[in-house]
Amino acid sequence: MVETIEWTPSGVVMIDQTRLPLHEEYVTCRNYEEVATAIRDMIIRGAPAIGVAAAMGVAIGVQYAAEDGLDAQMETICDTLAKTRPTAVNLFWAIDRMKRLYATLRGQPIAAIRERLISEAKLVREEDIAINRAIGKHGAPLVPDGKTVLTHCNAGALATAGYGTALGVIRAAIETGKKIDVFADETRPFLQGARLTVWELQQDKIPTTLITDNMAGHFMKSGRIGCVVVGADRIAATGDVANKVGTYSVAVLAKENGVPFYVAAPISTLDLTLTSGDQIPIEERSAAEVTHVFGNLVAPEGTAVKNPAFDVTPFRYVTGIITENGVAHAPYEESLKRLAGK
Amino acid sequence: MVETIEWTPSGVVMIDQTRLPLHEEYVTCRNYEEVATAIRDMIIRGAPAIGVAAAMGVAIGVQYAAEDGLDAQMETICDTLAKTRPTAVNLFWAIDRMKRLYATLRGQPIAAIRERLISEAKLVREEDIAINRAIGKHGAPLVPDGKTVLTHCNAGALATAGYGTALGVIRAAIETGKKIDVFADETRPFLQGARLTVWELQQDKIPTTLITDNMAGHFMKSGRIGCVVVGADRIAATGDVANKVGTYSVAVLAKENGVPFYVAAPISTLDLTLTSGDQIPIEERSAAEVTHVFGNLVAPEGTAVKNPAFDVTPFRYVTGIITENGVAHAPYEESLKRLAGK
Repeated sequence: MVETIEWTPSGVVMIDQTRLPLHEEYVTCRNYEEVATAIRDMIIRGAPAIGVAAAMGVAIGVQYAAEDGLDAQMETICDTLAKTRPTAVNLFWAIDRMKRLYATLRGQPIAAIRERLISEAKLVREEDIAINRAIGKHGAPLVPDGKTVLTHCNAGALATAGYGTALGVIRAAIETGKKIDVFADETRPFLQGARLTVWELQQDKIPTTLITDNMAGHFMKSGRIGCVVVGADRIAATGDVANKVGTYSVAVLAKENGVPFYVAAPISTLDLTLTSGDQIPIEERSAAEVTHVFGNLVAPEGTAVKNPAFDVTPFRYVTGIITENGVAHAPYEESLKRLAGK
Repeated sequence: MVETIEWTPSGVVMIDQTRLPLHEEYVTCRNYEEVATAIRDMIIRGAPAIGVAAAMGVAIGVQYAAEDGLDAQMETICDTLAKTRPTAVNLFWAIDRMKRLYATLRGQPIAAIRERLISEAKLVREEDIAINRAIGKHGAPLVPDGKTVLTHCNAGALATAGYGTALGVIRAAIETGKKIDVFADETRPFLQGARLTVWELQQDKIPTTLITDNMAGHFMKSGRIGCVVVGADRIAATGDVANKVGTYSVAVLAKENGVPFYVAAPISTLDLTLTSGDQIPIEERSAAEVTHVFGNLVAPEGTAVKNPAFDVTPFRYVTGIITENGVAHAPYEESLKRLAGK
C-alpha cells in the first residue's frame, strides 16, 4: 500500500496527487510554508489527509522556529496553514489539536516541545488509519452483496493517512467476503476519481469501472448500483454534508432511484457548531481547473467559469453517516452528538 | 454565423466539430463513405445536423453511383449511412425521406434523379433552419426573464443546420428582449458544452458561464437557474427523451429543485413507434473518449470504462417538449401525436 503522507527526518513526505496516476512521485516539504503550499495546490487533498498534513505542518514549523518569540511564531505557523483551504474542517481540527497541546507545553525546553509536537503529529496520522479501519468495520454490513458501489471523488487511502473512509468501507466489505465492484465517478474538474480512486483500487485489485460524472444517474436508474458511499469535508450538526462538488447530485439521484446514500467520515469531520450546511464556506477554485485538462485548453479563450470545489447535500438525502464510533441515522442532531460523545 | 454543413460543388462541407474551439477547420466529404465516417467520428454531430448530413450523404452517393444497378447501390449507400450511429432517429428519418423520394424517381434519367436528390438534401437543410426558428418562437415565452438558462451538451447551430434547437430557444428569447444568461454544462466525455456551446454563444455575444456537469445540481439548488433547455436525439410516443448522457441527471435535479425542464426538438426527432424510452438503442462509444482528454491519458492504463453516449429521461421529468408546431405537455401520447399531425 502506498503511503499518502509520512514524517521523515528530512521532512514531511507526500505522494504528489497532482501527478498521479501517470507519475508516482514524492514531495518532501522541508518547512511549514511548503506544507501549506502542498495543501493549497492539492499535492495532498482529502479532508482527513489535510488534517494530518496540517498537524505535521505545525510540528515542522516549530522544528525550525527560534526559541525567542515562539508563541508568536506558533501563531504564524497555524494561521498560514489555516488559510490554505476553507472547507474541510479537519484542517482546523488538527491545527486546534496542535495548538491545545502546545498550550500545555509552554515553558518546557524547546527540544521537548518540538519532540512532543512531532509525536502528536505522528499520532494524528496513526489514529487516522485506525479510525478508517473502524469506519470500514461499521460500514461493511451496509454494503449490499453482489452489487456495484458507486463512489464520487476520492475518499480513499490517498485522501487519508491510509485505508480510506468511503473506500475503507468498500475494502472492509470485501474483507468480509462480499463480492462487489466499484463504479468511480471521474470527478471533474480535478479528476480525483479517474486519477486517484481508479489507481488505488487497481493496486488492491478491486474491480473498478470509470464513468463520467454525468453517467451516475443513468446507472442508478438501471438498477446496477447497490449503494453510494462518499466521504465528507465538513458535516453540520443537522447532518448536512459538504463534500466534493457533484456529491449533491449523486445524492438526489440516489434518493430518486431508491439507492442508499452513505457518507463515511471520521468524527473530526463533524462541525457541531453549524446548524445548517448553508453555513459551510465553499471554496471557489481557479477557472483554469475547468478550462484546462492536463494543461490543454478545452474551452474557448476567455471563457467565464464557475468552479465551486464543494457542494452541500442536505441531510434528507443521507441514508446514514458512517463514523469510527458507529453509524448515525436521522435525526442527525441527536445521533451525531451521541457518536461524537457530546 | 458559422455554417455547420453545406452542399458545395466539390462535396459536403462541414465544420470539424472535433477540432473546435481551438481550430476552425472545414472538412469536405467527397463521397458517401466520407460522410458516413464524418458522422461516426462526430466531425458532425447533433441529431438534426446528422439528419442533414445523411440526406446529403445519400445525394452525394447517388452522384457517383453507376446507372447500372442503381437500386442496389442506393441500398448500400443508405445502409452504410444508417449504420453510423444508432440513437438519433433523425438519421433514419432523413434516409427514409431520401429513399421515399428515390422510389418516386425510378425510371427517370439518372441526371434528373441526381439533381432531384441534391435539391431534396438542400431542402432538408433549409427546412431545418426554418424549423429551428419556429422552435425558438414557441420556446421563447417559456424562458423566465432575468434568470439563467442551463443547457447540457450542444443543441445549437452546430447541432443543426443553423440557429439550434435548445440554443435556438435561448436566441429567440433574447431576440424578444429578455435579459438572460446561460450556464453550459461542459458535457463529458466529448465536451460539447465546453467546446461547442460556449464557442457558438460567444460568437453571438450571449453571456455564458462554463461549469462541469457535476455542478449543475449545486446551481439549481442555489436558485440561480430559471429553466433548463436541452435538445433530444429521439423521443418516444410517451414523451420519454433520449439525449446526451447526463440529461437524465439534469432533469431529476431540475424537478427536485422546482426548475422547469424543457426539451427542444423538431418533429423529426419523434419516434412514435416506440411505446417507451427503454426501447431506444443507446450507443456505447469507445473507452478512449473517457480515459483520454485531448489525447492525454487521464486515468491509469487498462482502466475499465463504461461510455453510454446517451441516457433516457422519463416523461415525468419533462415540463414541455418544444417543437416547430408548438409546445407539447403531458399527457405526451396525445400532445405529441397531435403536434406531429398523426
